[in-house]
Amino acid sequence: MVPKGRSFRRSNPVTLLLAALLTLGFLFFILSPSRTGNTTSAAAAKAQHFSAAEHPLSPPTSPFLKQASVPDDQRAPPPVVHYKLDSLTTSSDPVGNRETVHILTPLARFYQGYWDNILNLDYPHDLISLGFIIPKTREGNAATAALQAEIAKTQSGPEKKRFASITILRQDFDPPLQSQDESERHKLENQKARRAAMAQARNSLLFTTLGPSSAWILWLDSDIVETPPTLIQDLARHDKPIIVPNCYQRYYNKDKGAMDVRPYDYNSWVDSGTAQNLASKMGKDDILLEGYSEMATYRTLMAKLADLNGDPSSIMSLDGVGGTALLVKAEVHRDGAMFPPFPFYHLIETEGFARMAKRLNYQSYGLPNYFVYHYNE
Amino acid sequence: MVPKGRSFRRSNPVTLLLAALLTLGFLFFILSPSRTGNTTSAAAAKAQHFSAAEHPLSPPTSPFLKQASVPDDQRAPPPVVHYKLDSLTTSSDPVGNRETVHILTPLARFYQGYWDNILNLDYPHDLISLGFIIPKTREGNAATAALQAEIAKTQSGPEKKRFASITILRQDFDPPLQSQDESERHKLENQKARRAAMAQARNSLLFTTLGPSSAWILWLDSDIVETPPTLIQDLARHDKPIIVPNCYQRYYNKDKGAMDVRPYDYNSWVDSGTAQNLASKMGKDDILLEGYSEMATYRTLMAKLADLNGDPSSIMSLDGVGGTALLVKAEVHRDGAMFPPFPFYHLIETEGFARMAKRLNYQSYGLPNYFVYHYNE
Repeated sequence: MVPKGRSFRRSNPVTLLLAALLTLGFLFFILSPSRTGNTTSAAAAKAQHFSAAEHPLSPPTSPFLKQASVPDDQRAPPPVVHYKLDSLTTSSDPVGNRETVHILTPLARFYQGYWDNILNLDYPHDLISLGFIIPKTREGNAATAALQAEIAKTQSGPEKKRFASITILRQDFDPPLQSQDESERHKLENQKARRAAMAQARNSLLFTTLGPSSAWILWLDSDIVETPPTLIQDLARHDKPIIVPNCYQRYYNKDKGAMDVRPYDYNSWVDSGTAQNLASKMGKDDILLEGYSEMATYRTLMAKLADLNGDPSSIMSLDGVGGTALLVKAEVHRDGAMFPPFPFYHLIETEGFARMAKRLNYQSYGLPNYFVYHYNE
Repeated sequence: MVPKGRSFRRSNPVTLLLAALLTLGFLFFILSPSRTGNTTSAAAAKAQHFSAAEHPLSPPTSPFLKQASVPDDQRAPPPVVHYKLDSLTTSSDPVGNRETVHILTPLARFYQGYWDNILNLDYPHDLISLGFIIPKTREGNAATAALQAEIAKTQSGPEKKRFASITILRQDFDPPLQSQDESERHKLENQKARRAAMAQARNSLLFTTLGPSSAWILWLDSDIVETPPTLIQDLARHDKPIIVPNCYQRYYNKDKGAMDVRPYDYNSWVDSGTAQNLASKMGKDDILLEGYSEMATYRTLMAKLADLNGDPSSIMSLDGVGGTALLVKAEVHRDGAMFPPFPFYHLIETEGFARMAKRLNYQSYGLPNYFVYHYNE
């Protein structure tokens, strides 16, 4: 009467590795928001209690300290801590409304320029929580060590520069491609596995760090080494569920004999009939990728629409977004929008995310004349 | 040069409401894991700190208390707290391995039987964290009040019965269907909107409560009023990524003149050619639903395969799962599997979740002869 259970198999060696994704090592630094002076033990417990409730990042699960001065059998029931989430906003004035931002970064290599840049963000650091996910490779170990050294410096340095909290997750699977070599990474045949792994890493980081009072998520790649210090405010000001700046790269232009800029991230685009036709003829597990001559999509690429002297607040709607820098309202993720590690409408990772968000009625936007800069390898 | 930005519109009034989903009110009760006696303030802070690190549910973002006895300029950098997630397991021996379980419940009505039943679960309560999401309706307010009264009793009662933490999220949108009336809820035309809303509620609860040390998620509907006290251990023992018991209902059988049982949840099934044919002819936003004569799928329903005297450990693989009671390894969700509020392979909510998990190479399983019981209205 009962059908025989099929055994649980993973057929694809890549997904076998990916499925093993597990946050392995974990550590955090914390900056106390409380300004408690000398107090009695019970008062300290109380202060701790209230600082927990008032801390913008405080979670539902932080342990409650027993009042040492009160015997167990006379203790009042644990208190109710109210998080006033009805006053939690995600607005065009995030600083004025004290809105918390998670900066989430999949980190393969540590770039000093990345760290220096986020240190210079002038969004109040006590509203910023950092989250990293780092592969458990030799390169990942080196990145972790370098990151921890910088964290130790920052979190013991001037109070104003310290971040509210920092989370580091380690993956326990090998990335599908060991090499971080630029040309290898970008080969078309390597892209699907690479981006599926990246999507799963982003999901792990997101599901693990998002809390009840998170307002914004800034996805920021570890090789973004230059942004305006007002990045978060500038993006949030548009009050869009998903918004992406234009990701460029500085380089030495030999012809001009001077430094110059060029487009880097081609994943922010408006869809085309050609791309939709290509997709309709594909196998159901095939994906469309941008920026490969073998697969000309004729999509409208935001990277190509930049006017270097144009109005930085010019805005356009997009069908696909890149994730090098990407600001998302927490409600978009809470409703269920994640980074599909599988083909979703023939799209994957950040481009699939934009498609999934659209299924949830959230539109993506881009700022063609507002720039962030990718490291030049 | 820059295309004119399309305005952000939500066309569907239901999704308009759903998109507004925002956790509104929030409160929690906490049971301290620490056994601190009388201590000085600084020592209390230290104890608090370490209890935070060691607490199975402690999150990355719990605030660190400044040591009141140490002046600010002489304070050491905030400590690094290591969560040994490499020793975090999700195994067939969850009690032995001290694995944390989130019981997550979308709650529309409060049933005393639900609360009494979870109180009787003999899984160590200090490893159980409860999470609720409750609609912001009059009925939801009543449910919240009743729940809070029971929480106050339990969390101030015998230590062994207390749960590690309890989180209540309130939605700020009206559910698509105000009535919790059984016949209204089950009408075919109401199901898509109802289950989309339920999916979004589940996602909000999941994304908000999942933490770095979560091992298992037990989805348990608020109208499940009877399970074996060993429910968690019995399901976990099979060591499957997703596993669902058979959801039945007790009722008075007039013909027999005695109490009897009957199937309740038809969402756990093995797919059929008929269902796949139906799906292939559907509009892309149409969904398949189970248990409606208007839409006969001829799927193999686990509800119909029960042998009341059969081996309760009999196991079968499934293509769709119900969510009345459903145990999921946290890694399945962390990899990105959520409850699609939109048609995903013509499936939605828990059935769509099983399909999405399969895209991530996780197989669902069911126990046809292992029962949980739904309230009989």
